[in-house]
Amino acid sequence: METVSGKRNYADLEIADMMEKNDGDTVKTHGMIYSVKDMGDFGFVTLRKRNGLVQCVYNKGISQFEISDLGPEYSISVEGTIKKDERAIGGFEIHLVNVEVLSAPQEAPAINLSKRKLGVTIEKNIELRPLTLRNNRERAIFKMQEGVVRGFRDYLFKEGFTEIRTPKIVATGAEGGANIFKLDYFGKKAFLAQSPQFYKQMLVGVYERVFEVAPVFRAEKHNTTRHLNEYIGLDFEMGFISDFREIMEMETGAIKNMIELLKSEYERELKILNLELPEVTEIPTVRFKDAKEMVATEYGRKIKDPYDLEPEEEQLISKLFKEKYNSDFVFVTHYPVKKRPFYAMDDPCDPKYTLSFDLLFRGMEITTGGQRIHNYDDQVAKMISKGLDPADFEGYLMIHKYGMPPHGGLGMGLERLCMKLLDESNVRVASMFPRDMSRLTP
Amino acid sequence: METVSGKRNYADLEIADMMEKNDGDTVKTHGMIYSVKDMGDFGFVTLRKRNGLVQCVYNKGISQFEISDLGPEYSISVEGTIKKDERAIGGFEIHLVNVEVLSAPQEAPAINLSKRKLGVTIEKNIELRPLTLRNNRERAIFKMQEGVVRGFRDYLFKEGFTEIRTPKIVATGAEGGANIFKLDYFGKKAFLAQSPQFYKQMLVGVYERVFEVAPVFRAEKHNTTRHLNEYIGLDFEMGFISDFREIMEMETGAIKNMIELLKSEYERELKILNLELPEVTEIPTVRFKDAKEMVATEYGRKIKDPYDLEPEEEQLISKLFKEKYNSDFVFVTHYPVKKRPFYAMDDPCDPKYTLSFDLLFRGMEITTGGQRIHNYDDQVAKMISKGLDPADFEGYLMIHKYGMPPHGGLGMGLERLCMKLLDESNVRVASMFPRDMSRLTP
Repeated sequence: METVSGKRNYADLEIADMMEKNDGDTVKTHGMIYSVKDMGDFGFVTLRKRNGLVQCVYNKGISQFEISDLGPEYSISVEGTIKKDERAIGGFEIHLVNVEVLSAPQEAPAINLSKRKLGVTIEKNIELRPLTLRNNRERAIFKMQEGVVRGFRDYLFKEGFTEIRTPKIVATGAEGGANIFKLDYFGKKAFLAQSPQFYKQMLVGVYERVFEVAPVFRAEKHNTTRHLNEYIGLDFEMGFISDFREIMEMETGAIKNMIELLKSEYERELKILNLELPEVTEIPTVRFKDAKEMVATEYGRKIKDPYDLEPEEEQLISKLFKEKYNSDFVFVTHYPVKKRPFYAMDDPCDPKYTLSFDLLFRGMEITTGGQRIHNYDDQVAKMISKGLDPADFEGYLMIHKYGMPPHGGLGMGLERLCMKLLDESNVRVASMFPRDMSRLTP
Repeated sequence: METVSGKRNYADLEIADMMEKNDGDTVKTHGMIYSVKDMGDFGFVTLRKRNGLVQCVYNKGISQFEISDLGPEYSISVEGTIKKDERAIGGFEIHLVNVEVLSAPQEAPAINLSKRKLGVTIEKNIELRPLTLRNNRERAIFKMQEGVVRGFRDYLFKEGFTEIRTPKIVATGAEGGANIFKLDYFGKKAFLAQSPQFYKQMLVGVYERVFEVAPVFRAEKHNTTRHLNEYIGLDFEMGFISDFREIMEMETGAIKNMIELLKSEYERELKILNLELPEVTEIPTVRFKDAKEMVATEYGRKIKDPYDLEPEEEQLISKLFKEKYNSDFVFVTHYPVKKRPFYAMDDPCDPKYTLSFDLLFRGMEITTGGQRIHNYDDQVAKMISKGLDPADFEGYLMIHKYGMPPHGGLGMGLERLCMKLLDESNVRVASMFPRDMSRLTP
């Protein structure tokens, strides 16, 4: 009987293995060809491996194949000898002896992938995503994004959170409004979840502290540089809070941890992206009302909408706090009841406002959070005052009816956070396969 | 200016903190009341904390409150003294001095949550999920599920995989057939992803090894104990394989790691669930054709469908391999071309079959995987032979056209795996908020 035992037995070496080899050591590895520089008797083959590039040298006298038989995006297996070289990425080159072509493309790539920056429009880039993501800089963006998620997750695990997975096909929208995708569910009307809001609150009653990293769907009818119709939500929710600022403390801790993890484990990507991470020691907080007035005064601006922040105001608040306190982040707190969802808890000191916050990062809102209503009567009353029918929220209201601790949480948009880390101005740059009003492929 | 710095400053202790205290030490903590036993001058209050239960003792002479003022699902803050007791969970009790009610339910819970097993039908259980998940056993199920995902993820990170997040709103179904949810996407027809298949293959060209843990949507029109219409897919895909068995080796390694992690970090949950984990050293493999014949011979069974395994055959194959080789798992390999998707690679030795496999666990298929076609002409030809129009797969075919290494991967159903770990017979038991043909709430 044949069996498998889960043992690895790969002769092929990875970059880390090869970095430990000595001059003249024989190595075997594989990769896709990133670029070929054929100079006749001599040449370079750059290999794209799972976590970086490796420079290989072709030398007609030594190499037992023709460099002219190779091209970009060939999958090859190589054998050669290590030559230490400080100038090369990783500190070594492979002097090629044998190359075996495992798979050759049907056509040469439609664009030159090995340029430092691709130099195509964002539209073209997205259209060719299966290809453009192979570019070293594009690869680094989404590798860094992995690190951001890991930093969030690891921190919350350490803080006693439970990781949850909640349904995306739902019977009721959590965030209200028209920006919800409708679905035919075996003849019944269903929706795509606009957030895990109801579920994460339900699970606070179970695990006290929960988080989820999952897709979120918003049928926003505006095609802007800051909206995606499907994005990754980093959500957490925590019980037994005595002040909504504890949520902000938790987020600050998570962000610090993200930055630390990027520094320690994603150094290669930070270098490729030439990325300067924000220094976070303390994040300033300012009340919504004060923030609005501050930028109106400071920048001679009229307040048009007293209930919400316009994108330009978010930028100006960020600018102000960067200039005054050298902070890339600023928490804006106590948003008006009018613009916050029905589950937001009012400020007992001034019930026109809520115990809620947004986190602005380099001019853009990346998080919305706050304390939630836990009392049944209060929640029912708030629904009614917002024109909602409590009967539509029977499952959700079960938690208020049968008991909930004081609690709150937040949702963070992964792509927006990454876009701002990258200092980019279009959120699509930070989405592998963005979905917008006019884009459903690739 | 006020700031937040991410520092924690909680006076409240968690279970691990309290386990280290000595007899007579004063502690402060919080939780939701799981049960109250009021015996007049004396009583017990069991507290549900984020990762377990804590027994508290009421004693009229010492406790400065009335136990009759408390009830199940109250959120309370407590102060008391530690009393070491080997018989108590965690080895200690809290002798209560003060209790502060932070939040009281509107109504007493509809069912008794603190029973060892809830003792309600699965339908009733799901209907009351926001409540029933608070039961200690239900909680343990999904905590264990967290561990299963962590075991999968941690292993793949160690093996050099990149974590990816691919779109769930798509223009083309990856698995074909009618079991796909349709969606109106700004006037265009869209679907919910049946799997991340196309995207994970695309990303093999970028990162060589990738994995994703995310929801998967299947509009299966049969309401069985083994189907969910939304479930969590554990997917990975790896490039530069020289044999499709390498995928099975990787899965075996991941499963071993899951089991190790459950043993080391989820001991409490395993105990609550009274769960016996399978011993995995080597997993036997058997060809589809041979497996079919073996159970036909062994159990005197007629082969009805030569191209697929019936659920009963899966059970019998598992039974046979358990009896003969004492294995809870068995890989069935080389499925017929007819029943495998268009991206499956044919076996060059016998092109009626594919280089593919299913993993059976205790009588049920929990994984489907295999090697994929990487050559452009081969993929186009296979699409045509399956009655598909290559023009519908333009984005996907980009990878075949511009070059792909030999690769393969698999998809595992999280809930099915957990259901079988639990030795349960209905997959809904392992889904927090199951979605089936007749269930969209809670």
